[in-house]
Order: sequence, then C-alpha cells, then structure tokens
Amino acid sequence: MSDTVVVGLDVGGTSTRATVLTLTGRRVGTGRAGGGNPTSHGAERAAAELLTALREALADVDPARAAAGTIGLAGAGRLLADPAGRAAFDQAWRDAGLRCPYEVHGDALVAYASGTAAPDGTILIAGTGAITAQVHDLRLDRIADGHGWLLGDAGSGFWLGREAVRRLLADLDAGRAPGALATTVLTELLGSADVAARPRDTVDATIQTVTRRPPVELARLAPLVVDAATHGDPVATALITEAAAHLTESVSRIRTAGAVTPVVLGGGLLTADTPLATAVRAEIARRWPDAPVRTAGDGAAAAAWLAARGLPEVTDPAALHARLFPTP
Amino acid sequence: MSDTVVVGLDVGGTSTRATVLTLTGRRVGTGRAGGGNPTSHGAERAAAELLTALREALADVDPARAAAGTIGLAGAGRLLADPAGRAAFDQAWRDAGLRCPYEVHGDALVAYASGTAAPDGTILIAGTGAITAQVHDLRLDRIADGHGWLLGDAGSGFWLGREAVRRLLADLDAGRAPGALATTVLTELLGSADVAARPRDTVDATIQTVTRRPPVELARLAPLVVDAATHGDPVATALITEAAAHLTESVSRIRTAGAVTPVVLGGGLLTADTPLATAVRAEIARRWPDAPVRTAGDGAAAAAWLAARGLPEVTDPAALHARLFPTP
Repeated sequence: MSDTVVVGLDVGGTSTRATVLTLTGRRVGTGRAGGGNPTSHGAERAAAELLTALREALADVDPARAAAGTIGLAGAGRLLADPAGRAAFDQAWRDAGLRCPYEVHGDALVAYASGTAAPDGTILIAGTGAITAQVHDLRLDRIADGHGWLLGDAGSGFWLGREAVRRLLADLDAGRAPGALATTVLTELLGSADVAARPRDTVDATIQTVTRRPPVELARLAPLVVDAATHGDPVATALITEAAAHLTESVSRIRTAGAVTPVVLGGGLLTADTPLATAVRAEIARRWPDAPVRTAGDGAAAAAWLAARGLPEVTDPAALHARLFPTP
Repeated sequence: MSDTVVVGLDVGGTSTRATVLTLTGRRVGTGRAGGGNPTSHGAERAAAELLTALREALADVDPARAAAGTIGLAGAGRLLADPAGRAAFDQAWRDAGLRCPYEVHGDALVAYASGTAAPDGTILIAGTGAITAQVHDLRLDRIADGHGWLLGDAGSGFWLGREAVRRLLADLDAGRAPGALATTVLTELLGSADVAARPRDTVDATIQTVTRRPPVELARLAPLVVDAATHGDPVATALITEAAAHLTESVSRIRTAGAVTPVVLGGGLLTADTPLATAVRAEIARRWPDAPVRTAGDGAAAAAWLAARGLPEVTDPAALHARLFPTP
C-alpha cells in the first residue's frame, strides 16, 4: 500500500477539526482549533483556525504525502464565490505545507458522508437551527428549511427554546401553576421559579430577559426541553413530538414518498440519544419505512473520506467508509 | 343641562386623537396629532403631541368648562410609574388650559369602552400585535398575550405576515409553483413573482429582504393575506382560520367557559370587515354562544365617556354611551 494520506477538515461555528488518514483508514494525525465559519468569523480568521488545526494534524506526517483534501464548512458556496476568502484558504493550505488540491463542500454534505457511503440520500440536521438536504452523487442537491430563526428552523433548538417560553407565558396568562418544564425555564431565565403576586409581572420579566439577548440564544433552553421530556414531562414531550413533525415535514418537501435511500441525522439534537432523535427516527420510519436511518459521526474523518474516494488507488470507497465508521 | 364638558384622548403609536363632549354626548371639539406612545416615542414627545391634539379640540371651547378627562394609551402603567413622564403629561394638560383632573388608562380599556358600556367583559385587539384583557368594573384586569413578536402576538398582523412568508418558503423548498398569496408576497418583497432557475436563490433573496428590516415590519404583509383570503385563496384562508384560533385561545386563557359578558373586538384587523374578523366572531360564538360580540369604535369618544361616567351629573352612563355609539 502507498504511504499516501488524505486530509479532511470540518469547520464549524465553535471548532475546527482536522484529520489525516491513510488510504487504509488509519488516522495518522488529528488537529483542533477554534470556530472557523467564514460567514460568522470572516474568511481571514477562519483561515487562521484552519492553519492551526492543519499544523496540529500534520505534526507527525510529511505534508508531501497528502494526495487530496476536503474542507467541509457552512456557507461553502459563499466562500467559493469570494476570491479573497478563497485566497485566504489557499494560503493557509500552502502554509501548512500542503501541495495537493482540495475541495470545499457544505457542512451538510460532510455530515451526510459521516453517516453513510451511499451516493444518494438525505441529511437532516437539527442543532441551534435546522436544515435538510438531498444528496445526489455525493453532492448537495435540493435544500429545505435552514431559513433562520425568524422565518424557519422549525423543530430546531431555537424553536424548542422559544416554544418552551411560549408555553410558560401561556401558563402565567391563564394563572396555571408552572409545570416541570415551565419551572426549569423560569429558573434558568429569572433565577427563581417564584411567580409574582401579579403574574403579569413575571410575564414582563420573562419577556424582558429574553429580548435583552440575541433571539438565537433561545436555543440555550432546548436542553431543558430535552431533559424534561426524558423525565416524562407532558408539555416537553408534546413539544418534542411537534418538533419531530416539523423536521420530518421539512424532509418531505424534498424527499420523494417511496424513497429507500438512507437518511442521516446530524446536529447536536439528533446525534445524541435524545427523545427528539427517537421521535424523528419513528416519524421517518413511519413515512419511509424502507429507508435506513443513520447517525452522523466524525465530520473531519468524513471529509477525509470524501477526498480519498476520488483517488485512483481507492478502489472500494464503501469498504474504506465501513472501516472508518464501523456500525455499532 | 350644565355646560360642563369632558375631554377624552386616545394616544396611539401613529396618531393622537382628542375629543371634547358635552354631557349629552354632543362632540364640541376634536383634535388630532402625531403618534404619542410614550414607550416608543418618549414621554416628552408624547406630551407635545398630546398638547397639539388638545389645543385643536379646545379651539372653540373654554377649557374651564371641562370637569374631567381620560387619557388612554399603550403602556399606561409605565407612564404612571415614571414621575418625569407623568410630570410632562401634567404640564401639557395645564398648558392646554385644563384645570380638571384626568385619569390615565390602558388603550385596551378605552378600546373596550368604545364597544360597550358593560362594566365587565373582554377586549381582544389584533393589529400589528395581539393582546386580550378581561375588564372588571371598567378597569383592566387579567391580560393574555401581548407578548411581542418574538414570543407571542399569535394571530396578529406580524404573525400573519410571518406565516405568509413561511408558506412561500415551503413552496419554494418543495419546488411548487407559488399560489395566489405566495405570488403577491414575492412581488411585494422582491418586486417580481419570478422564481430563479435555482429556487434556493429566491429563498435566499426573500430571507435577506425580510431580515434587512425590523422583524415587526412583517406585519405589513398582513393585508395581502386578508386580501387573498377575501378572494378565496386556500392558503390565506387557512392562515386566517389559524389566526382566529390563536386569538380565541388567548381569550380562553382569561375568560371563563360560560361567560355571557360582551366581547369587544379592536385593532385594525378586527374592526374592519375582514375575513379574520368574521372568523374570530364565529370562533367566539362557538365557544361563548351567549356572549354579545361588539366592534371597537372611536377611542377618544370612549375615553371622554369614561371621564363623564364618574361625574355626579351623569346619572345614566349607559344611555350616554348609546348616544355616542349608536348600534348600526
């Protein structure tokens, strides 16, 4: 076997991860740096984090051995359309000692490839936001949702957090004692679950606390919903069911009714063993009973696999994928 | 009959209106000025608009004839809690030549009183936002919703506008040709109803157009939903039905199941002859079959009536109300 390696990067909003793989699927280097999303951090800053992660991953590997690379990131299309951003990434690549070409793909494609080697299928991601995409021939094809918190992201962490506050406010309006979820939400927002003598004062304090922060921070309440549902709270359980219905509806906008291709679940709310992941699996099994449902894994390894599968030496990309992502 | 008059003011976000009434219900002066909501415009600016409207209304009336006044405004509680704001209003009142006392009430109470003289009942307002309140002894009692666009205002103009855009984005995601409502929304937002060869480009342009403006401006799309529903568009009709259900659900948070007291509908979406007003009337008739449903009218006259009914000379406030607001 050659001593060729491939380089994969998963550039996210909170961290950048790099992995160097041999063509037999052995990890010979990994690196990690801060968030590098060029849309939110700027291409220069993103490129700097990229270089840090690459240097760490290549510490014990001669960069000249690298034959191909893949960078997965959110807003890949915007980076590719921006000559300055593309130049900053090219420079980081060269500064890491790499001379091979690299491709840039959307983070959704990389998440998909971390769950399956099948060229066609669906990726559904729910974290702070929510987006779903059809994958055709290992390229992103049609997309649904990902419309942001004001107009979309139905079933996302933002959505769960906002709905939890809305249910709390409805309880306070109606003079109902806050239930389990409402109690934890009140405590998280106001430091105490006590309702004022005039409940409207608690309503106003809740609204003021939420609106003082960027709206997207409502997603920080999503784990409270997940926890409460895990412990059987009926309000939280109903929200989880509704979120799963929204996420599956987004999938149905772009996935045909009888499809049997895999569905990969990604994002913090669906890769962990949460009630939402369980509910989404059930909804997908109901609508697409013959489709395998997979969970997204190591994005940097998936990016490296995407790079490897284009090389002539890699005659069985599916076997390499199976070695990288063994089914549990 | 005495030559006593009463003064009423309805201070709104876009206009301030003043009315001077005799105790027989004759309008002897009206005035109008710019928006004077002290929460959004500041108390000084609000007081200046108040003075303009008052001077116009008192142009042909000796202010010494005034025995009482009422000012209705959104955020009345905040004004009363703010000594500087209260002082600015006192000063405007004196500068208009008025020496009688005045009371400040929430705009919801004034809207209620413009629909009925009954001391107990419910006011439901849907305009840009949505709020409902129980009225007890002609004072605002419990309140539901009014939580603002991020967390509430379900069924409001903002809500209708946002949902219209969400339905449009769902059509574009799914590759469906935009229907009647989606076509007008696209044209309003992008200047044309043409969908790009890659529909995702139209999705992105729509989201960018909306998010460049303050979110509350989504309420400007509400008339498109009302129009499309009037012309039978099924998507708009479904949104109107859903909005009516949200508004009625807010009422049910604070109004007991068998209540027979009046329900007054206020706000631009419910005082005009819109499909939403029709749908809300039907929902209320379904839940509270024995409750009279009224429409809010002239707020400044209602404020003046609230002032008049506290005077010893006014022995039959209901009769005065009937003269001011004749049933059609």
